[in-house]
Amino acid sequence: MKLLYPTSLVLDTKSLEGFSVDIVPYDVKQPIPSEHYDAEVLVTWTNTADNLKDAASKLTSLKWIQSLAAGPNDVLNAGFPSHIQVTTGSGLHDFTVAEHTLAMLLSCARRLHSMRDHQLKSKWPGHLGGPQPDRPAGSFTTLRDARVLIWGYGNIAKTLAPHLTSLGATVKGVARSQRVDNGVEVYGEDKLPELLPETDALVMILPGSDSTKHALNSDRLKLLPKHAWVVNVGRGTSVDEDALANAVQNGEIAGAALDVFETEPLPESSRFWAIENIIISPHAAGGRPQGAEALVADNLRRFRAGQSLRNVVDR
Amino acid sequence: MKLLYPTSLVLDTKSLEGFSVDIVPYDVKQPIPSEHYDAEVLVTWTNTADNLKDAASKLTSLKWIQSLAAGPNDVLNAGFPSHIQVTTGSGLHDFTVAEHTLAMLLSCARRLHSMRDHQLKSKWPGHLGGPQPDRPAGSFTTLRDARVLIWGYGNIAKTLAPHLTSLGATVKGVARSQRVDNGVEVYGEDKLPELLPETDALVMILPGSDSTKHALNSDRLKLLPKHAWVVNVGRGTSVDEDALANAVQNGEIAGAALDVFETEPLPESSRFWAIENIIISPHAAGGRPQGAEALVADNLRRFRAGQSLRNVVDR
Repeated sequence: MKLLYPTSLVLDTKSLEGFSVDIVPYDVKQPIPSEHYDAEVLVTWTNTADNLKDAASKLTSLKWIQSLAAGPNDVLNAGFPSHIQVTTGSGLHDFTVAEHTLAMLLSCARRLHSMRDHQLKSKWPGHLGGPQPDRPAGSFTTLRDARVLIWGYGNIAKTLAPHLTSLGATVKGVARSQRVDNGVEVYGEDKLPELLPETDALVMILPGSDSTKHALNSDRLKLLPKHAWVVNVGRGTSVDEDALANAVQNGEIAGAALDVFETEPLPESSRFWAIENIIISPHAAGGRPQGAEALVADNLRRFRAGQSLRNVVDR
Repeated sequence: MKLLYPTSLVLDTKSLEGFSVDIVPYDVKQPIPSEHYDAEVLVTWTNTADNLKDAASKLTSLKWIQSLAAGPNDVLNAGFPSHIQVTTGSGLHDFTVAEHTLAMLLSCARRLHSMRDHQLKSKWPGHLGGPQPDRPAGSFTTLRDARVLIWGYGNIAKTLAPHLTSLGATVKGVARSQRVDNGVEVYGEDKLPELLPETDALVMILPGSDSTKHALNSDRLKLLPKHAWVVNVGRGTSVDEDALANAVQNGEIAGAALDVFETEPLPESSRFWAIENIIISPHAAGGRPQGAEALVADNLRRFRAGQSLRNVVDR
């Protein structure tokens, strides 16, 4: 039996030994060599569309694809036969996305973007330093006592929330199912009209799908306080970008830090570039799978034992 | 007995009642009205030099000055007679400085300043996003597994360290006295030659004094790895600014985020403005005393009881 692993990231393949499986590297940017058409397992990470399309037709023994991406749209759209199981890298990106989200939240609160704008003009932004009011009403200047609402309360949110609470924030969540998750009150979307007006920072971690399209629209933006900031690290399609640009420009909310966009790279024609309190991050939150070996090894063991795999995509 | 409190910040004066003391507001930018020359206690915050100089000669009954600043140089230089006790606001700024430090550390790791530079040119910084190496050798791109050295390991460091360790960093400290502080190994300055080469991010929280002047000099900068970042939230005088500018421009270290400078506001002539990987913050880390009422009330109780005060300055 043969498993192909990608050389597009550093994997400690020693962790994959012991299963009587040949562990073979491959280049995700090239067609897979014909001597490996007999592979039964394919691990993918940042493969080209051509590589995947080629693999879909040539790897006739393939039974299982382990993607290291949280959302393996590339694999699902490549034309692999439907009997091939696909498992995702869900969980491998939780920490790194949470860390980037924290960085962006703190940058909004502390106005680091505005300090940078001043620096580039050789101007000292004195109004952002020196003695400051500690408890400015209607302002988001610290995570201490800030009310943070995380919309799309899954594993990334669960990783992020303790860092926010330890900095003094009050965290609430919104998800499909109402529950208490590790001490955080998670509400259904029907509660948004009550939650949004009491939010200082709204963190969006919604997946991209038809049901989340433009979830944050003009009506919901109007429910946020004028001093609220929005951070989006989920998918760009979950935000109505024109409505968001209007809300920031019209002062309906204070600003937004965005790591994801409806179209990426963000087109030059976007209004976002020039809006002072819009902060643009180039889909940088994730993209660094962590602990991939442990997931692949566990799934490989399950595969060899005929047990059900983790992170299986319903196809 | 009369206590004068400043109107330059919002104080909940109800917390100061119950001591049979008149609690009277005053304007820190104006001379103190003659009907209050009998005050025995003066609380100060962002007073003008003129106000303090005037108070020093007119408040002839004064026995104690409670500053809300961590380092009340303004009070100490105003000419108050030496029998007047001065107490500092040490501890009121720990959280807010720690939060700003965390914001700057994460901004360095995630290159938010560089993303902003690109945004202002309407350019998508693709190289900073998308799939990234998870464990790039010789690079500071995350706090996970990062080695953070805090030089000047006092209360701010103690507040900051748990946030860093919970994000996966390994924290060590440098201070006058070697010890283990709340689980963090704190070394004497004699260990710097061994510690600096194993540091990914150096956080400076040294006070301003003759003994800390240019503590981070050219020789010590050379001991840091090329990928190291420096964050200074202590005092500008602790860093040799020319040596730091040289180190960043020559690639001896990766960059620096600075909240304090030898001269503030930073002069237009400074080399720092134009160096890409120097991040300028306008002395914004602190400046928001927190929990001031509790400190003043406790010291007022001690004062009334004839007990020794907290945070007394040795004069």
